[in-house]
Amino acid sequence: MNGLPPDGEARLARQLAFLLELDKLKEVQRRTRLLGSRRLENSAEHSWHATLAALVLLEHACPGADILHTLKMLLVHDIVEIDAGDTFAFGDQSHKAHDEAAAAARIFGLLPADQRDECLALWREFEERTTPEARFANAVDRLMPVLYNYHGGGGTWREHGVTEPQVYSRLSPIGDGAPDVWTHVQTLLAEACARGDILPARSEPG
Amino acid sequence: MNGLPPDGEARLARQLAFLLELDKLKEVQRRTRLLGSRRLENSAEHSWHATLAALVLLEHACPGADILHTLKMLLVHDIVEIDAGDTFAFGDQSHKAHDEAAAAARIFGLLPADQRDECLALWREFEERTTPEARFANAVDRLMPVLYNYHGGGGTWREHGVTEPQVYSRLSPIGDGAPDVWTHVQTLLAEACARGDILPARSEPG
Repeated sequence: MNGLPPDGEARLARQLAFLLELDKLKEVQRRTRLLGSRRLENSAEHSWHATLAALVLLEHACPGADILHTLKMLLVHDIVEIDAGDTFAFGDQSHKAHDEAAAAARIFGLLPADQRDECLALWREFEERTTPEARFANAVDRLMPVLYNYHGGGGTWREHGVTEPQVYSRLSPIGDGAPDVWTHVQTLLAEACARGDILPARSEPG
Repeated sequence: MNGLPPDGEARLARQLAFLLELDKLKEVQRRTRLLGSRRLENSAEHSWHATLAALVLLEHACPGADILHTLKMLLVHDIVEIDAGDTFAFGDQSHKAHDEAAAAARIFGLLPADQRDECLALWREFEERTTPEARFANAVDRLMPVLYNYHGGGGTWREHGVTEPQVYSRLSPIGDGAPDVWTHVQTLLAEACARGDILPARSEPG
């Protein structure tokens, strides 16, 4: 006997269709490489790593960050990449907002309406970085590639000739979400600059 | 200026060492294959998928399952596989308990003692399946390969010649954690048996 009401069957079918669609995030490649095999990381395993990092680093969050809300945000923050792809932090971002909004509408739209709206709100909150949870979640998300680059011979910084102002512009929001972690990251960045993993500011022509 | 007390620096160092170690879970292969590329799934991306599935399917949990506690359990439930490897659900399980306990002690032992103890407790709770959260987390964890096998041409059931009693023995705990989901899964299993993805019970010799 089935305990679900008639609309419960339809809800479960939508939820399972959404979960199946998420399989595709495992095929979206990021720029970071794993420390062991050096293969490119994918966005699904990154999402797990970043979510767990928020759990482990919670005591370093700025005051008022609710952990459940933070974990939910990190679990969904990269799902739009199934359609929009991963946007390199130091690359062209001009299409990112448009492409990701369309992706969010399609993919979260697979869910029942109430869950679609919750996921859309979580994703937008992550992107807007105004709440304590969004600031902490963004801090953790930006921390992960620092660890990979620092411990992986310069990683994407070196591969893509990234400069010190680019790195600080990208990473300083860590200070808004997890101030102690940002202090620690700055010592790693100073070392990475000193050993040439990160280039000094480019001198402008003319 | 660094806002951390002296022992805070040491805590942060241990937390980051643990997070770096987790990178290795991305290299642990499961038996399930992704629906798109057909490559083997790894345990890190599975952990993300299962954790998000718990969030999406929460309304189907047995009463009393706290969602934050469930998410924490699913985030850490496979970390022991970094040392112990993935144990095939339908294979030899004789070394699993011993190997995983040693792995848990080593890997969670990288964390500060309070966090080590919390992670050890979460992992044990998941394995013991006695609390509502552990039953729901196990239900979701066991659901994921069903979806892959059902939508992937029989998947590991067909590849490994798995029988109906084996499948029901492995999957019936879904009913303890998410009864409505188990009802749905049983219809999928009946179809899979009918199309020969799952073998009938083996007749015993003699």
